[in-house]
Amino acid sequence: MIIDHLEEPLPGSSLRPTPAGSAYTDPAIFAAEQADIFEQLWNCVLRADSISTAGDWKKVTVGREELIIVRTRRAGIRAFYNVCQHRGMRVCTGDEGRARKLQCGYHAWTYALEGELVAAPNLTAMPDVDRREYGLKPVHLREWLGYVWVCLAAQPPDFDTEVLGEVRTRFGEVESIDNYGIEHLLLGETKTYDVAANWKLIIENFMECYHCATIHPELTEVIPEFADGLASQRKNGEVHGSSFGEDIQGFTVDGSAGVAALPAIAPDQDRKYYAITVKPQVFINTVPDHVIVHRMFPVSQSRTIVVCDWLFLPEVIHQSLPIEKSVELFHRVNQQDFEACELTQPSMSSAAYAGGGALVPSEHHIEEFHTWWRERLRGESRVAA
Amino acid sequence: MIIDHLEEPLPGSSLRPTPAGSAYTDPAIFAAEQADIFEQLWNCVLRADSISTAGDWKKVTVGREELIIVRTRRAGIRAFYNVCQHRGMRVCTGDEGRARKLQCGYHAWTYALEGELVAAPNLTAMPDVDRREYGLKPVHLREWLGYVWVCLAAQPPDFDTEVLGEVRTRFGEVESIDNYGIEHLLLGETKTYDVAANWKLIIENFMECYHCATIHPELTEVIPEFADGLASQRKNGEVHGSSFGEDIQGFTVDGSAGVAALPAIAPDQDRKYYAITVKPQVFINTVPDHVIVHRMFPVSQSRTIVVCDWLFLPEVIHQSLPIEKSVELFHRVNQQDFEACELTQPSMSSAAYAGGGALVPSEHHIEEFHTWWRERLRGESRVAA
Amino acid sequence: MIIDHLEEPLPGSSLRPTPAGSAYTDPAIFAAEQADIFEQLWNCVLRADSISTAGDWKKVTVGREELIIVRTRRAGIRAFYNVCQHRGMRVCTGDEGRARKLQCGYHAWTYALEGELVAAPNLTAMPDVDRREYGLKPVHLREWLGYVWVCLAAQPPDFDTEVLGEVRTRFGEVESIDNYGIEHLLLGETKTYDVAANWKLIIENFMECYHCATIHPELTEVIPEFADGLASQRKNGEVHGSSFGEDIQGFTVDGSAGVAALPAIAPDQDRKYYAITVKPQVFINTVPDHVIVHRMFPVSQSRTIVVCDWLFLPEVIHQSLPIEKSVELFHRVNQQDFEACELTQPSMSSAAYAGGGALVPSEHHIEEFHTWWRERLRGESRVAA
Repeated sequence: MIIDHLEEPLPGSSLRPTPAGSAYTDPAIFAAEQADIFEQLWNCVLRADSISTAGDWKKVTVGREELIIVRTRRAGIRAFYNVCQHRGMRVCTGDEGRARKLQCGYHAWTYALEGELVAAPNLTAMPDVDRREYGLKPVHLREWLGYVWVCLAAQPPDFDTEVLGEVRTRFGEVESIDNYGIEHLLLGETKTYDVAANWKLIIENFMECYHCATIHPELTEVIPEFADGLASQRKNGEVHGSSFGEDIQGFTVDGSAGVAALPAIAPDQDRKYYAITVKPQVFINTVPDHVIVHRMFPVSQSRTIVVCDWLFLPEVIHQSLPIEKSVELFHRVNQQDFEACELTQPSMSSAAYAGGGALVPSEHHIEEFHTWWRERLRGESRVAA
Repeated sequence: MIIDHLEEPLPGSSLRPTPAGSAYTDPAIFAAEQADIFEQLWNCVLRADSISTAGDWKKVTVGREELIIVRTRRAGIRAFYNVCQHRGMRVCTGDEGRARKLQCGYHAWTYALEGELVAAPNLTAMPDVDRREYGLKPVHLREWLGYVWVCLAAQPPDFDTEVLGEVRTRFGEVESIDNYGIEHLLLGETKTYDVAANWKLIIENFMECYHCATIHPELTEVIPEFADGLASQRKNGEVHGSSFGEDIQGFTVDGSAGVAALPAIAPDQDRKYYAITVKPQVFINTVPDHVIVHRMFPVSQSRTIVVCDWLFLPEVIHQSLPIEKSVELFHRVNQQDFEACELTQPSMSSAAYAGGGALVPSEHHIEEFHTWWRERLRGESRVAA
Repeated sequence: MIIDHLEEPLPGSSLRPTPAGSAYTDPAIFAAEQADIFEQLWNCVLRADSISTAGDWKKVTVGREELIIVRTRRAGIRAFYNVCQHRGMRVCTGDEGRARKLQCGYHAWTYALEGELVAAPNLTAMPDVDRREYGLKPVHLREWLGYVWVCLAAQPPDFDTEVLGEVRTRFGEVESIDNYGIEHLLLGETKTYDVAANWKLIIENFMECYHCATIHPELTEVIPEFADGLASQRKNGEVHGSSFGEDIQGFTVDGSAGVAALPAIAPDQDRKYYAITVKPQVFINTVPDHVIVHRMFPVSQSRTIVVCDWLFLPEVIHQSLPIEKSVELFHRVNQQDFEACELTQPSMSSAAYAGGGALVPSEHHIEEFHTWWRERLRGESRVAA
């Protein structure tokens, strides 16, 4: 919905091309994206406090893999493929649970929360079974902003530079996102959207505001500058938050007041909206009194699950302060955006879009995303092939 | 259902082969048919008077493309791909509507009914945007028999010789189809059939009457000669309509009288049924008091949408004269035929049909269709490849 | 569920590999299995007494083919492809019926129960139509154990050596399976399971009892030795039936008495369970008073239909003696097994199973099945290619 590029709109008035329509419809391209992007990079998968007690586990899907995220007793949170190393059955069934150990229901192979094989029928008669080698296959994991991030790659990209540093830099001064204290916020609401569109359409939609005047009446009421479609995050080399309208009291569906502002935000973060895309699957949106985080989970070339969290101060949640109007604003924005994406997806296979579409000047920065996407596919595909 | 070949049954008693079963089941062959047949030739898509007022539009599907058919103010009817030339969203949503201009709901790019880009946010700041180049992508269009016919090919086949001349010639004397005044008739009933069969099975079924005695009891009652399976449209070099039975009063489900005959039909067109296949997707059937038109829209190698129209004189429609028994006759024929096609489709993938089936002498003319089909695929595939 | 290998567990304590996960998920491998295994070998399709009167027919599916199994007047049971040799329509519709002749509903081509073409419209005017050549395409058929077995191969494997001899040998002494008189038993119950798993997972599950302690509480109560996971069918070179527990009266869900024992079983077959896999799609289980037969029909790489019959002495069926507790025992075993298979199937596509899983020592004999499977695919694929 909101652009996150580093520079102001490029000068000039020309239209720039997008990828060909087949980029959004070809199952082979989607398989390459799963292999080379989602299964190689860091994915934000769930809120760490949603598995708060030792033994709590949840299932998540990253790329084409089902994972277990489990809180251990002494080793923090761990992530594993949900695949028994004996004959392959799903170790955890259902979506979540709490367990002392992770036991496969087929032949009772039993794993510690930290992953190693600790018991199995007749295991003592199999002395050459290495309990680490036959432990659950682990996945790299980091915690940041209160979320669990995982990476399926054998050699993951460096989290500190690739994710954390990139986000801090792009957000403004290095520490500016830290002012929101996102890791200390609590979940006020979460909504899941099953979107019949390619994940790249959803990112492109988030990266521009040329559509805001057409489809987001509530949002452009709250942030009038979005109506002109030129919602840059940078102006004259400075970070630029998008200002609330003069008579707007809060980031709510009717502009009425929200809850109290987060305590550590800077003066120039008050009455402002900031947004950033953390490729490949996260959008972070901040306003003075709450933070909205989108996580995308691509299912096929034409289907993407999007989970959106609304995060508030603990006292807001504990005191059940009213957050409905805050939630409703971005829920409407989400619905409006995803409907547009769903009405775009079918055209991607048309001969009339075989050569791709056009980016107007205020969308030119989307080319950065397309360049990144082409480089990820090109480089990794060759390694994988 | 009815043969439309130019000659009488070939002499001889041999069985002739059909294409291999894979011709009816292979997705690659179906894709080639969409590309080389349905997206290259003229398709009959809708009744022109169904979009009667300037601004009326309807969506249709031709080959793998969704099109908008719209009546303009001064330029007659136009057809466009339903794809915004900016970022590709469907310009028209829903199945039909009426509009002063065609506006995309994503970024408000706005097109005249004649297709050119007439407005867009910040368009005046983009002086090098050619409003014709970025207009909706047009499709060739002709009106004939009161129907809109469109062709997706860049260079469409000549309509006058390929469709119009061919139909008139095959129907008998050049003007004989004109006697029915089909372009002046009104729609009395339309029915849509979702048939789980390959489109070629439906054409082959329409082209022979060897099955009539087995599956069409009502039809063979009305037209007894169909019961012998040799329903040629030509005898001794003359056009041959199929005669009603002696005690039959009209082309109705029980042989009772229909409505008044169309005023300009010739004496030898009275009490007779004529039929023709207009490849690749139209069947025209005429009887003295009405005309039945089938349009086929292939969806996959094993699914075809068939729309059947029953057309009557305007006074019949305006006075609400009884047409139910007329409609019911061919509706039953349709149901009987499509059930047969649906029970044939699954066998097409059997090893017992891998070499194809057999045409009896009264079906030999279907080979003409198979030859035409092979030539269309062979020629165009090479050009396209 | 039960191992059927000829030897005792191999010495040693090592884990042995399984095929790669893709063997269970790749559509191309499944197509090869249909072509090279199910469409080449003998398949057990239905109980012969289910078509008891001349003219009775039933439809079955073998590999990717729909067949008609029909009882003739004087030639016993015959099997044909359900494909009319004229234009391919399904000759029989519905699942079963009784007919004097088999007539296609499209153009009335009519076949004798023995398959030859006996009538068709205008057939007398087509003297060069060979009524055998255009008869229904036949399939090889044998009856054994009261079941109809069919083979689609042009040159089927020798039934006497490949099926009958193999079963008798593996079951113990050559005649030991004959003691059960399976061909004289009657069907007491049949249940159909639609299992979302590859057929090989179902065979592997049937071949080992390492899982019995975990998922089969009722069965291990009745047959305590299954709880140790080492349920060999051979010990010291002798056939080894699995013994009922001391306080168990019958093979029932609660260990209560079943019905009277089959009259001809040997003393060492009393109070014992025997089982055998007849590759590629049959499991036979015998207990003193009844016999349980599973037939598998693979549908896709991730879906298999399993039909399970419970067979009893005629007097048990005729007198409606209580069989519910007997049926319930293996019905629960089936449900438990198939749930395990269904929870294993999704992991087969995981990177964490790309190299396959592990067989513990008591599962080592499953390698024989994997070797057989690899050889069938390798040999036949080349012939077919």
